[in-house]
Amino acid sequence: MTRTQVGIVGGGPAGLMLSHLLSLNGIDSVVIDNRTRVEIENTIRAGILEADSARLLVDTGVSDRVLRDGHPHEGIDLRFGGESHRVDFRALVGESVWLYPQTDVFVDLADARARDGGDVRFGVSATSVDIDEPAIRFVDSDGVRQEVHCDLLVGADGSRSICRAEVPEVVRTHSFREYPFAWFGIITEAPRSAPELVYAHSPRGFALISQRTETHQRMYFQCDPSTDPASWSDDRIWEELQARVAGPDGFSLKEGPITEKTVLRFRSFVAEPMRHGNLLLAGDAAHTVPPTGAKGLNLALADVRVLAEVIERALLKNDSDALDEYGPRALDRVWKAQHFSYWMTTMLHALPGATDFDVRRQLGELRSVVGSEAGSRYLAEGYTGWPA
Amino acid sequence: MTRTQVGIVGGGPAGLMLSHLLSLNGIDSVVIDNRTRVEIENTIRAGILEADSARLLVDTGVSDRVLRDGHPHEGIDLRFGGESHRVDFRALVGESVWLYPQTDVFVDLADARARDGGDVRFGVSATSVDIDEPAIRFVDSDGVRQEVHCDLLVGADGSRSICRAEVPEVVRTHSFREYPFAWFGIITEAPRSAPELVYAHSPRGFALISQRTETHQRMYFQCDPSTDPASWSDDRIWEELQARVAGPDGFSLKEGPITEKTVLRFRSFVAEPMRHGNLLLAGDAAHTVPPTGAKGLNLALADVRVLAEVIERALLKNDSDALDEYGPRALDRVWKAQHFSYWMTTMLHALPGATDFDVRRQLGELRSVVGSEAGSRYLAEGYTGWPA
Repeated sequence: MTRTQVGIVGGGPAGLMLSHLLSLNGIDSVVIDNRTRVEIENTIRAGILEADSARLLVDTGVSDRVLRDGHPHEGIDLRFGGESHRVDFRALVGESVWLYPQTDVFVDLADARARDGGDVRFGVSATSVDIDEPAIRFVDSDGVRQEVHCDLLVGADGSRSICRAEVPEVVRTHSFREYPFAWFGIITEAPRSAPELVYAHSPRGFALISQRTETHQRMYFQCDPSTDPASWSDDRIWEELQARVAGPDGFSLKEGPITEKTVLRFRSFVAEPMRHGNLLLAGDAAHTVPPTGAKGLNLALADVRVLAEVIERALLKNDSDALDEYGPRALDRVWKAQHFSYWMTTMLHALPGATDFDVRRQLGELRSVVGSEAGSRYLAEGYTGWPA
Repeated sequence: MTRTQVGIVGGGPAGLMLSHLLSLNGIDSVVIDNRTRVEIENTIRAGILEADSARLLVDTGVSDRVLRDGHPHEGIDLRFGGESHRVDFRALVGESVWLYPQTDVFVDLADARARDGGDVRFGVSATSVDIDEPAIRFVDSDGVRQEVHCDLLVGADGSRSICRAEVPEVVRTHSFREYPFAWFGIITEAPRSAPELVYAHSPRGFALISQRTETHQRMYFQCDPSTDPASWSDDRIWEELQARVAGPDGFSLKEGPITEKTVLRFRSFVAEPMRHGNLLLAGDAAHTVPPTGAKGLNLALADVRVLAEVIERALLKNDSDALDEYGPRALDRVWKAQHFSYWMTTMLHALPGATDFDVRRQLGELRSVVGSEAGSRYLAEGYTGWPA
C-alpha cells in the first residue's frame, strides 16, 4: 500500500501537469494510467497551444522545447467566398498560439516527471477508485495488486473516465450536444500549403488546412459521421479538399501521398459538478469540445492550473473553502470554451438542413467578423485563450 | 397620365425618405400608397433609430423632432442569471441610439414631403405596376384611374410587396427562416421600469423591457406562435414578465393596466436581387428581420440612402453602372443585419428542444460577450449600426 496526498487517475497532459505543479509546491502525488508510455506516445495527436499553455510548460520548468520545436502562429486565415481574410492575433491581442502536437506535450511532461522523480505508473490494469476513503486500486505493470491511498483523488482519465462515473447520478448533470457531422482527417507527405491554419467555409462544407512539419501536413474536411475513411481514394480526397479552398485568388493545396486517413466524431460534453467531496475531475474527464476551436488540451491545462492552486491552499494552508472554488472557476472557462467551439463550428460548417438563408447569414457573419476590429479581436481572444 | 423620373410604390418611411432625398437632388418622384395617411398614422409601431438614421432625418432637413421628442439611449442591459450587465454604447463606439417610434418617423416624413410640395398620393387602390415600360397604375382616392410613367420604379411597398412579385422567378432567390416562437407584446400604463432597454435571458424564455413615454411602457416576452393574446389575463402576463426578469438584485417591473396585447411573428426574409432592370426594391419589400435587433426601419433607411445616391448618378450623371451597385451595397448591410438579428435572437431566446447544454452554452456566450470589451463592442457596433 502506498500513501500519497493526491492520487491522480490518468497520465495524459492533465494528470502529468497537475502532478508536476503539485510537486513544485512540495505536494506528493501518484499518477496511474492504464496505457503504457509507448502507447500514449504512439497515439499521434495534433495540437494548438494557447499562449498561456505554452508559458505554463516553459515557466514551470517542464520544458522549453515548445519554443524550439513548436511553430508560433500569429494568426489564422478565415477563408470564405473563395477569399482569405487573416485574423492577426499578434496585432489584435498581442499573443500568438503555438503549433505543437499534444503528443509532444505528453512527452515533455512524462520526461519532466521522470527527471524530477515523480511517481507515475503507466501500463496498469484493473483500475478502480474509492471516493469515500480516497484510494486507487490497480494491478501494476508487473502484475502486482496495488493500492494508493490519498487525501484527494483526481480524475484526469479522459472522456471515458471511470472517476466521473463515481459522482452519484442525483448530484450530477451531464450536458452534451452531438453535431451532425464529423471531420475527415488526413496526413499527407507534402510541403506546407499555407504558413498558418486556414479555416475554410465553402458551399461544399468546412475544411481546415493545418501543418505538422516541413514534410508532413494535416488537413481536415467536414464529412458525414458514417463516412468510412478507407472508402475514399487519395484522388477523391484531394479533389474534395481542393474544391473547398478554391477561389478567384488561385489558392490551392500542395498535394502528396496520403499517409493517414481518419474520421473524427464531433461532440460537446460537460460534467458538472467538477468536484464531488474529495474527487476532482479535470480535462476530458469533465468536458469534451469539438476540435474546431482547438480548445481541448488548453482547457485541460487551464483546469489543472486552477486545481493545483486550490489543492495547495487546501492541503498546505488548511483553507477548507479552497476546493469549493475549483468547479465554478474552471467551469466559467469551460462554458466560454464550449461556446467558442460551438461558434467556430456553426459559423464555418455546412449545417445539415441549412437553407439559402442560413448559408448567406453565415457569410454575413463572417463578413461582420473580419470587417470589424472588435469582431476579429473577440475571435482572437477566444482562440488565443482568455486570461486565467 | 403623369410623367415622373422615379415612381415609388409605398409611402412608408422608405418610400417617403427616398422621395425626400431625390427631391434634394432635383429629381422628381411620385409616391403612392394604398393606405390613407390616417391609417398609417394609427398603426402604432415602436422604433429604435440607429445614430445614422436619426442623423439622416435631421441633417437632410426632414425634421429635428427626434432630437426633442426622442430619447437617446446610450446602452442596453443584457440581463441573465438574474443580473444586469450594461453594454455602454457611448463608451464602446461613441454612439447612441434613439427611442423614437416608427410612426413618428412616418409623420415627420409625410409632413416634410407636404411642406416641400412632394407628390404623395395616399389612399389609392387597384395598384399595379409595369416594369418593362415602367409605370404605376392605380385608382386615386377620388376614384379616378391614374397612370404614372417613370424612368425608374421603386418598390418600397412592404413585406407583401406587389413590386417584388414582378421579378421573374428564374432570376430571384427568396431566402427565409421561420423562428419557432413569437413575441407577446404589451403596452402598459405605468412609469418606466428601467431607463434603457433590458434584454433578458431567462430559463422561462426571453423578455424585452422597453419604454414608450413617461406614462406608457412597452414590454415583450417570448411565447409560442399559436398564443392567443386575448386568452392571457393581465395578472398572468405580469407574473410571467416578472418571473423572466427576477433576480437576486431585486429588479422588478412597475405594473399598470395593460392597454394593448399583441403577438408578433418572427421571420427573416431576403429577396435577391434587389434590382431587376428598372425596378429597385427597398425596405421590407426586400427583407424582413426579427425585431430582436431593432434593425427593420434602420435597414429600410440605409437602403434608400444608397438608392438615392445611385439614382442620382444614373439619372443626372448618366452613370450607366450606378444602378448595378445598389443591390450588392445594400445586401452587404442586409446580411450583416440579418446575422445580427439572428445572433441577438438565438443568444437570448429559449430555443425549442434546447438541452441543458444549449442553455448553459448561451450563458457561456453571454458571459463571454459582457466579459470582453471586444465582444461588447462588436455587439454595440451592430446595435448602433455599421458605418454606411
